[in-house]
Amino acid sequence: MNKETFRERVQNTLERRCFYIPSFRIYGGVAGFFDYGPPGCKVKLYKHFLDEEHMLEIDSPCVTPEIVLKASGHVDRFTDPMVKDVKTGACYRADHLLKGYCTDKLEKDLDISREEAAELKHILSVLDNLSLEQLGAKIKEYAILAPDTKNPLSDPYLFNLMFPTKIGPSAMSSGYMRPETAQGIFLDFKELYNYNGNKLPFAAAQVGQAFRNEISPRQGLLRVREFTLAEIEHFVDPDDKSHQRYSEVSNLEFLMFPRKEQMKRDEQMAVQSAKIFRLGDAVSEGIVNNQTLAYFIGRVYLFLTRLGIDKKRLRFRQHLQNEIAHYAADCWDAEIDSSYGWIECVGIADRSAYDLHAHSDKSGIPLVAQEKYAEPKEVEAMNEKEAMEMKVILESKGEIEFEVCKLQKTVTIKKNMISIVEEKTKEHVRTFTPSVIEPSFGIGRIIYCLYEHSFYMRPSKDEEEQLNVFRFNPLVAPIKCAVFPLVQNDEYEKVAERISESLFAAGIKYKKDITGTSIGKKYARADELGVPFAVTVDSATSVTIRERDSKDQIRVNVNEVAAVIKDLSERRTTWADILQKYSAHKTNLACERDSNEQIFVNLDEVAAIVKDISEGRATWPDILQKYSAYKTNLADCVKDLAVETL
Amino acid sequence: MNKETFRERVQNTLERRCFYIPSFRIYGGVAGFFDYGPPGCKVKLYKHFLDEEHMLEIDSPCVTPEIVLKASGHVDRFTDPMVKDVKTGACYRADHLLKGYCTDKLEKDLDISREEAAELKHILSVLDNLSLEQLGAKIKEYAILAPDTKNPLSDPYLFNLMFPTKIGPSAMSSGYMRPETAQGIFLDFKELYNYNGNKLPFAAAQVGQAFRNEISPRQGLLRVREFTLAEIEHFVDPDDKSHQRYSEVSNLEFLMFPRKEQMKRDEQMAVQSAKIFRLGDAVSEGIVNNQTLAYFIGRVYLFLTRLGIDKKRLRFRQHLQNEIAHYAADCWDAEIDSSYGWIECVGIADRSAYDLHAHSDKSGIPLVAQEKYAEPKEVEAMNEKEAMEMKVILESKGEIEFEVCKLQKTVTIKKNMISIVEEKTKEHVRTFTPSVIEPSFGIGRIIYCLYEHSFYMRPSKDEEEQLNVFRFNPLVAPIKCAVFPLVQNDEYEKVAERISESLFAAGIKYKKDITGTSIGKKYARADELGVPFAVTVDSATSVTIRERDSKDQIRVNVNEVAAVIKDLSERRTTWADILQKYSAHKTNLACERDSNEQIFVNLDEVAAIVKDISEGRATWPDILQKYSAYKTNLADCVKDLAVETL
Repeated sequence: MNKETFRERVQNTLERRCFYIPSFRIYGGVAGFFDYGPPGCKVKLYKHFLDEEHMLEIDSPCVTPEIVLKASGHVDRFTDPMVKDVKTGACYRADHLLKGYCTDKLEKDLDISREEAAELKHILSVLDNLSLEQLGAKIKEYAILAPDTKNPLSDPYLFNLMFPTKIGPSAMSSGYMRPETAQGIFLDFKELYNYNGNKLPFAAAQVGQAFRNEISPRQGLLRVREFTLAEIEHFVDPDDKSHQRYSEVSNLEFLMFPRKEQMKRDEQMAVQSAKIFRLGDAVSEGIVNNQTLAYFIGRVYLFLTRLGIDKKRLRFRQHLQNEIAHYAADCWDAEIDSSYGWIECVGIADRSAYDLHAHSDKSGIPLVAQEKYAEPKEVEAMNEKEAMEMKVILESKGEIEFEVCKLQKTVTIKKNMISIVEEKTKEHVRTFTPSVIEPSFGIGRIIYCLYEHSFYMRPSKDEEEQLNVFRFNPLVAPIKCAVFPLVQNDEYEKVAERISESLFAAGIKYKKDITGTSIGKKYARADELGVPFAVTVDSATSVTIRERDSKDQIRVNVNEVAAVIKDLSERRTTWADILQKYSAHKTNLACERDSNEQIFVNLDEVAAIVKDISEGRATWPDILQKYSAYKTNLADCVKDLAVETL
Repeated sequence: MNKETFRERVQNTLERRCFYIPSFRIYGGVAGFFDYGPPGCKVKLYKHFLDEEHMLEIDSPCVTPEIVLKASGHVDRFTDPMVKDVKTGACYRADHLLKGYCTDKLEKDLDISREEAAELKHILSVLDNLSLEQLGAKIKEYAILAPDTKNPLSDPYLFNLMFPTKIGPSAMSSGYMRPETAQGIFLDFKELYNYNGNKLPFAAAQVGQAFRNEISPRQGLLRVREFTLAEIEHFVDPDDKSHQRYSEVSNLEFLMFPRKEQMKRDEQMAVQSAKIFRLGDAVSEGIVNNQTLAYFIGRVYLFLTRLGIDKKRLRFRQHLQNEIAHYAADCWDAEIDSSYGWIECVGIADRSAYDLHAHSDKSGIPLVAQEKYAEPKEVEAMNEKEAMEMKVILESKGEIEFEVCKLQKTVTIKKNMISIVEEKTKEHVRTFTPSVIEPSFGIGRIIYCLYEHSFYMRPSKDEEEQLNVFRFNPLVAPIKCAVFPLVQNDEYEKVAERISESLFAAGIKYKKDITGTSIGKKYARADELGVPFAVTVDSATSVTIRERDSKDQIRVNVNEVAAVIKDLSERRTTWADILQKYSAHKTNLACERDSNEQIFVNLDEVAAIVKDISEGRATWPDILQKYSAYKTNLADCVKDLAVETL
């Protein structure tokens, strides 16, 4: 099955089963907006991530005044290059049109010259670095037209991706919907540092909506205009980026794609070559900048694979020099392979002290940390050598040029303005701006990739159709358990109700199905929602629990169901253990004539039992003890199955 | 203590301990925006509310295209009357200024005539119903000026409270930030009805941000521009508003404030008279419109009181005829008494079929439910009597006026246009638009009121200062447990770490305090964060657990701590039970000279023990058995306390 067919099948299932619903659909929909429906699998594990690190979680507003985003750089730089259809006014991403032209030409034009091909490939590799002028020139040179109308296009210009708004009734206060949740944390740095007892390192986190007014959103759930971001800002001393728990991840091995490997590809036109690295080696070889950054890379790897992301389709790609922000020390993206290609789902960046500096400068409020020296430290304002050199020049020339870093300009100092003497002062406290390491999770993208990695098909029992299954692991499955009576009757429904209540009391999300549909259809429905366990009520005292992927069944006492499902859902036990503990479900009932007592037994065992009893090697009570007996007042309903020859 | 002082004390504590932080504070702040900080108590119980009702939860975007809010009526009617300072352009709520004028005059002007007073009181009672013209006339008549500058004011005009935005790069698509989360559910009705197996009743819910661009927000956390709403839309057959679980709430008794009681007050100028009603009586007497509405009123009562809202300061107030929307069948607000007065925190409304009709009309997509008749039903398009009367008139006059309901106009029907015959058709399915009952929770307001209801002060041990305490119950407390070593040393810190790990594994949110502060300060800090239990590590094997409000202490084995705290936090057990089970903490150690064995014992018991042993009535082993012994290798550290005379 090719990628497009696979994707269509997944998305069809997701939409049909209400995992998501295109927003505002009854009004024709608006590109880039989706609702998550009832089974829309929320990544609860993420909370675990926050708690384990003792992160300080905050909730700040989505509406953000302009000054904040001016300071952060978003007002000036959060833009995409855009062109307009000169006749209709329809808008397009200039770089996307150029990319589309190059890719198409390379794929479809068989007469293309070697030089031409090389140029197109070169454009693709530097696409993100082209200036507006360069983009415009290429669009003109290749005579690229508006895709829908074939009209000419305007020159490219920058479009800011933030949703604009007005705060309050006066027209003066401009604001935007936040493009990320991180800024709210930076603004609260002082309070959070204080809440943490004025100690570093600490991490703060925020999960919430973020907004990007994309020019023309494509790629379904992967490029949307409003989405849930989860961002962690881990504040550290820039002079000490070690991490206390580094040893917990340093032995992990997984696919990494360092800068130098990517450059190799570019030079030699070779295929990608992400390689398996031991994380600790990547740090000691200087590939990953520091321990804290590596620690979060490792934690993200564990998080994603525990969710159910296929580790063979997960790689950590280092940003190239031309991608990385000028202030950032290092940056890695967790990329997941999907039917759309490799998708950036988590970014892990060492942003140095850039953000705190920016807000400190703009607001005039110092956003700093302090460290008490073990003992007071002698400091000189200038180093001794510099000062003595200055003294010599002043005495000979009478003046000197001096660069003041803070003012970023050079002043002239005259001899009579200063005197230079040797003097030392003592400092008790070191004041500095912390660096920040930021793991930033695109929750919607992770969920979508998880949907794709969890999806598979298998033939129905009659082999007439292919059934859809999501193999969500019990920990993340939005619904842990389905409950249904084998047949529609009052007694079974009462048992199903009792089981439902015990599941609810145990905090287990379940779905009850009391429709008249066949048991096979009910299983198929549950499989399509990714429900890992199904409880079929087929007696008043014990029931059948079936595991989704293996289709294995066990028999469990009604009173034990909730505990078993809870242990499985919270991964305190595995299905394999449960399977061993409970006798796997014997699919046939054997009923003794006189006592009307019944046992569950495989058909192939029946003959042996009959033989043993007939020949006096065993009595019915022996058999009864060996097989877990169960009593039922529904003898009639099972008579068909009963082995009356006993 | 008066209300203002109380409020100041609460808010100071909340802000100092980072429960909330004014948003964008380093830039001077923006009115009506607050961040929730790390202990910002998220109302998790709400999730329980949703799960117990098997509600279908969805997540739809905050950004909403104009057409949706045009259909819902928000574009035209979600407004407040505003006036502007004609010189500075500063904006004010016209009704608030008029209200302020009337209240002030009534309170402070002692020479006011009886007629004048009556008029001002009348204005206050009809304030919400005044037209723009009436508001303007009164502002002119009373010569009300801009409060800050004493400049004249403009005529009042309507200001729309939605934050406006633009969707996409073309200037054509206007949108707004949603003013409520409900519309997202209505738009998805078809999908949700289908997900629910095309069955009514069912409820859908959404928790998320909502936005109201208030003209001049006041009242701190109670009137904000961005807030978390939790809305439930319970869809029912308009012909059957009974509720399956009604009997679970019908015997509840609590304060209700029906319309007729409020009218009484207005007429007689008497004080408010909310009264205790049995919910079932309120329904049978026709005070509450229907069972489903009453069911949710009851559930909201249980929810709020279980959170910790004082039931004596909670009332359900019915909307007056002039407050209620024209389409609504009935509406009740859960109001909570706070230092700002009675605050509307939850609205519970029967909105009839208004919303589904509105979106159905605007979009042209039917949003309906269907019911299969048990057996096909004979229907007539008109009733027989009407048809026969029509026939008579047509035959005599040759034409008749006929009102077509759907077109809302009257047409003339001539004799030759129709024939009237008796005929009946069979319908198998009834198609109808469901009614919706909507409980809508202002989460931030509930949390703020919970803060106030949970706050109290008590003297410190030395009686020199008043300490702040939040009496959050264990179920809702954001931090369940504090952990600290009695003194700073490696061994105790290791035990504290072991306990922390076991708490984390059990999913309990805790806070560790290993600073060198005194134990009393540590308790005070924890009390101020509303932490219900504090674990003090004072030995390597067993520790002291102290309950916040009673200050009772018990001794518990290190390995049992997590289980005890978990049971308490999840309300599987009460403190009273725990107190009975574990021997209350004996505050002194007694140490036997030769064996160095120790016991915990009250000072007043020591004398008796010494006497018993000295006089041969008991041996040390007897005593050891009677009091739970504990061994420690920290004999030195407890020597001070030891009773060496034994």
